[in-house]
Amino acid sequence: MPRVSQDQLDARRQEILAAARACFARHGYEGATVRRLEEATRLSRGAIFHHFRDKDSLFLAVAEDDAAAMVETVARNGLVQVMRDLLARAVSPDTTGWLGSQLEVSRRLRTDPAFAKRWAERSAAIAEATQERLVRQREAGVLREDVPIDVLTSFLELAYDGLVLHLAMGRPAGDLGPVLDLVEEAVRRR
Amino acid sequence: MPRVSQDQLDARRQEILAAARACFARHGYEGATVRRLEEATRLSRGAIFHHFRDKDSLFLAVAEDDAAAMVETVARNGLVQVMRDLLARAVSPDTTGWLGSQLEVSRRLRTDPAFAKRWAERSAAIAEATQERLVRQREAGVLREDVPIDVLTSFLELAYDGLVLHLAMGRPAGDLGPVLDLVEEAVRRR
Repeated sequence: MPRVSQDQLDARRQEILAAARACFARHGYEGATVRRLEEATRLSRGAIFHHFRDKDSLFLAVAEDDAAAMVETVARNGLVQVMRDLLARAVSPDTTGWLGSQLEVSRRLRTDPAFAKRWAERSAAIAEATQERLVRQREAGVLREDVPIDVLTSFLELAYDGLVLHLAMGRPAGDLGPVLDLVEEAVRRR
Repeated sequence: MPRVSQDQLDARRQEILAAARACFARHGYEGATVRRLEEATRLSRGAIFHHFRDKDSLFLAVAEDDAAAMVETVARNGLVQVMRDLLARAVSPDTTGWLGSQLEVSRRLRTDPAFAKRWAERSAAIAEATQERLVRQREAGVLREDVPIDVLTSFLELAYDGLVLHLAMGRPAGDLGPVLDLVEEAVRRR
């Protein structure tokens, strides 16, 4: 049996994550059966579950990857831009599935204390990235000065959660552009 | 067999709804088993399902009643007050269960087109009540004039959805008071 390097293992892990992300996005957590995950990854269940203990761990790894990517986007462009991107992509079936996965995360947060504890770090990282960007914006003079940064952070997160639930319920995305303008304006200097 | 008047039937129906509401709020949709519904209503399943076809219809009737009550509160006090009430009650287990039911409604909206169609009337009624109140507030001169009423309505609904998801995920409610102040301020005249 040939030795497999750590690099090869890592690369395989990334391939599985990418294929599984697409599969969860398209079919949702429940709909992404092990058979569909096999088709998506072009690997056997044995090979998949060599890297991830079970479907649940695989879903968590995808969700954590998504959260890490979101932290990066927030740090670069801010949470309002994340919302605008979400709105722009809202018509695609992939996004609809992704939203389903977000609600699956929400459901688990409520019903699974171990998951909630694990997830708390991720959501803290997103809040932190949002807050850090707001601090930089305040220094640049574009942010309002009369409301504490942590209140502005929570306000943007509330709007983000609202957008996720709105889109996940299948409500129309079309007229939310001006609503996001209002959200952005509410945190800016007059 | 004694004749039962329509008034008696209606009263019994209301009793079942009240007891079932408490049961769904405490245990969530899945956790509110038929046995628990029997205990809560002090009626047999036969008696319960004489009035409601099945557990699903009972849940829908409760959710529709809640939505109707919300329309009334919105018309009287506005959606921001509904949010403040929700925040004040967020620590109680009844509210946590109610939030679970709200997410159950959200999940069904996404997965069940027949339900989504039926529910569309309810959510239109809430939007309409919100909008009507904003029109009255604009007439009273307390509302900003530079943003169309329908954008302000969608903005408040986005914040409401965000609050529901935030609380349903079990995130802390404590520091959201100043965030709701910011939401309210964003729709008011400067």
